[in-house]
Amino acid sequence: MSSTAHPTDRSAETDQATMDGVLRAAGAAAPALAMIEPAGRADLLVAAADALDAAVDRLVEAADAETGLGTTRLSGEVGRTTGQLRLFASVLHDGAWLEATIDHADADLGRPDVRRQLEPLGPVAVFAASNFPFAFSVAGGDTASALAAGCPVVVKAHPGHPETSAVTAEVLDDALTRAGAPRGTFAMVSGVERGRDLVAHPAIRAVGFTGSVAGGRALFDLAVSRPDPIPFYGELGSLNPVVVTSGAAAARPEEIATGLVGSFTLGVGQFCTKPGVVLVPRGAGLEDAVAAAAAEAAGGRMLTGRIAEGFRDRLGALVDLDGVDVLTGPADQAGAAATPVVLVTDAARLVAEDLLAEECFGPVVVLVRYGEDELADTVAALPSSLTATLHLADDEVEDAGELLAALRDRAGRVIVNGWPTGVAVTWAMHHGGGWPATTNPLHTSVGTTAIRRFLRPVCYQDVPAALLPPALRDDNPLGIPRRVDGRLVL
Amino acid sequence: MSSTAHPTDRSAETDQATMDGVLRAAGAAAPALAMIEPAGRADLLVAAADALDAAVDRLVEAADAETGLGTTRLSGEVGRTTGQLRLFASVLHDGAWLEATIDHADADLGRPDVRRQLEPLGPVAVFAASNFPFAFSVAGGDTASALAAGCPVVVKAHPGHPETSAVTAEVLDDALTRAGAPRGTFAMVSGVERGRDLVAHPAIRAVGFTGSVAGGRALFDLAVSRPDPIPFYGELGSLNPVVVTSGAAAARPEEIATGLVGSFTLGVGQFCTKPGVVLVPRGAGLEDAVAAAAAEAAGGRMLTGRIAEGFRDRLGALVDLDGVDVLTGPADQAGAAATPVVLVTDAARLVAEDLLAEECFGPVVVLVRYGEDELADTVAALPSSLTATLHLADDEVEDAGELLAALRDRAGRVIVNGWPTGVAVTWAMHHGGGWPATTNPLHTSVGTTAIRRFLRPVCYQDVPAALLPPALRDDNPLGIPRRVDGRLVL
Repeated sequence: MSSTAHPTDRSAETDQATMDGVLRAAGAAAPALAMIEPAGRADLLVAAADALDAAVDRLVEAADAETGLGTTRLSGEVGRTTGQLRLFASVLHDGAWLEATIDHADADLGRPDVRRQLEPLGPVAVFAASNFPFAFSVAGGDTASALAAGCPVVVKAHPGHPETSAVTAEVLDDALTRAGAPRGTFAMVSGVERGRDLVAHPAIRAVGFTGSVAGGRALFDLAVSRPDPIPFYGELGSLNPVVVTSGAAAARPEEIATGLVGSFTLGVGQFCTKPGVVLVPRGAGLEDAVAAAAAEAAGGRMLTGRIAEGFRDRLGALVDLDGVDVLTGPADQAGAAATPVVLVTDAARLVAEDLLAEECFGPVVVLVRYGEDELADTVAALPSSLTATLHLADDEVEDAGELLAALRDRAGRVIVNGWPTGVAVTWAMHHGGGWPATTNPLHTSVGTTAIRRFLRPVCYQDVPAALLPPALRDDNPLGIPRRVDGRLVL
Repeated sequence: MSSTAHPTDRSAETDQATMDGVLRAAGAAAPALAMIEPAGRADLLVAAADALDAAVDRLVEAADAETGLGTTRLSGEVGRTTGQLRLFASVLHDGAWLEATIDHADADLGRPDVRRQLEPLGPVAVFAASNFPFAFSVAGGDTASALAAGCPVVVKAHPGHPETSAVTAEVLDDALTRAGAPRGTFAMVSGVERGRDLVAHPAIRAVGFTGSVAGGRALFDLAVSRPDPIPFYGELGSLNPVVVTSGAAAARPEEIATGLVGSFTLGVGQFCTKPGVVLVPRGAGLEDAVAAAAAEAAGGRMLTGRIAEGFRDRLGALVDLDGVDVLTGPADQAGAAATPVVLVTDAARLVAEDLLAEECFGPVVVLVRYGEDELADTVAALPSSLTATLHLADDEVEDAGELLAALRDRAGRVIVNGWPTGVAVTWAMHHGGGWPATTNPLHTSVGTTAIRRFLRPVCYQDVPAALLPPALRDDNPLGIPRRVDGRLVL
């Protein structure tokens, strides 16, 4: 069995007959996959992780040729991807994800016996991202969490790394099949039109997307304009503001400058969590330290020619704005590579210019000089982001509550005295935010709770024990935490 | 303070200046309300419940005059409404709703300290329903769960009971204000256009809606076409199918007939959980028992003239369909009252006719005769509903797994040998389903987890203890259940 269309031409648009077969198979797989107990689904995830780890050399070779991200970073990303699959296996074993809840009948109140657990939504379409060819691509977080939830997955491959996608799909599909996953559990398709077809298809019950605001909005609009709208979980664009207080700027300018440059140039600035604007206290001289650090930072090849072109265009537009100056780096860039750029402007410009508040994908950061009396209004004018970061001195902590709250209101994750680029895959992580960071502020695409996007509650009323799912039987055969008659029981 | 527009003309459209003030106040209240600790918000809910209970006579008098639902039912509904407010107070005290999660730093893995909890989304617009003038109206489940979440609420009153709405709003607003809620925590507006304005307004961060498919779809479309789309939680229309097996029909025909008639005529058939179609085994004679029971059932005045007219029109269209016969009741109805009607048809008609698979709001049920070989396909053709019910005999339980799973795939709640109309307000309840039952299959509008609709996760990375919210401090000052380093701790 091969669910990967067009093995000989990796980037060709999947043909209609193949699409039909893929979607029919995904629909047929849904009930079969849902019937596999959580521990069995965990085994599928671990088998996939093992197979991907075993294929790491092939995967990294393909990805390095297509993305230029380097073998060190890419090997690490394969590890992150397989670690994520294994983490979701542990989530399945833990069992709390089922949110199993039992309210026994209460004759006095005339209440029936009512029990609830979460169940898979059905086939999920996953749109792979360009910037993480493993962790946010074919076998990435959306795929891992959807499979963990018991939902078949159809991936729309990113055209930026077709060969990497094909190899990953082949390894994943083979591992799942050999581990006993139902036929149709996983498939991959290619082509912009095929992506639209996926979102509109009746068999697809939810969408995971990572990409641009324009592309994400178009697919979101399609998902919600269906006769039967479906949940669309899109991560689009994020400014990721940083605020440096006067105390922090005075206490550790070089440390902040070095950290900032490392953060905004990581992966050639192609992280969704790249800090895009940094509010620096006017007159504190932090600009000099940043300029010095940036002058030593390396650029690199961007992921695709189209992304490099987009970076050049956006950078040019930023530089053309009134009151925006180039602190370091070439304002004119050419070719497939990009060199780090630091721009500088004033708080009033950030508030007035929409363009300054939009993500610019690539190694550029805008330092925004503020006076103390401008800070609150400037923060209030920021769009919602995945992250917001605050650098402050120890003796400022006590009075920082209001500022931190203002940043929290504009982000899904607040960071103090650190950098937002790294996203730990853990139980407490949240990778989300208000529009335009995501299309749905309630959910995350990184961390264990990402599984919740692909699950729906089902309530069982007066259902005989023999017909109840295991998680809801009185004897708790899965041994999972549950809420029984209003009380949590481990 | 009065947030109720036009105290002298209860149903007039709220004017623009009042709207502006209401939305400004809601926006201003959001951070203040969010800062009140859960226990303090619980006190607000209990104060509201106490005040509504104290005003029960006034409330019931107003509602009976406007809806004709009767004082017994309406008193009970006030109790349900205040019980719901108190249940959310207990949810706030319990604390698990915060989903507090702590992952301590791991130096070996290079991981920062990461902590997550849920926080209020911001001002919520609530569209009241006609059929529950208390429990799904001004102080109903959407309002209770949004306030519990820490979100200010602006209710769009239902025009079917303007006086009831105004009295409820006055009591609720007064109770909240006297208990110390920030100004702007609650307000009510009126008018169709004002409802649209609410959904489109930048201050509103989510919408709760209960009503028709047409009205819900229009507002859903508005919410998702905003420059910044917002979550829209709509409960629209539900068919609530029932399947009676041959064993059940043979074993207890009268009991099923009596139960069914009681269920589909409850509240003059104006429940979102009214069973709309009942699949009965062909030739088992259950029709006769249903006809006998229905002949003794009382009709009654419908909620509004418009609803009565809608019922007459829809009933007429159903009766005009080929292969649909009237078993009992008048096919032609007139005036504000409605008389119970039982229609009968064949499984092939249900599969072929879209109209038979749509909700008909009012006291009508369609018996659908099936042969054993038709059952699976007929169930597969049913739309998603809030509920699906199975009546079966004891000796059929063992083999009913597949049928129950098919019903579960089309409903948010499955009921065995009972009736769907009652919806217990408990921890395990789920009141939701796929389109068109709701606009979002992941969430419920009844039961304790309804609070989740109005909360977003926020992650705190390396945030000093002094700046952490109480739920995320190491010493757990709220004494709530949390997940710490991957393990649930009570």
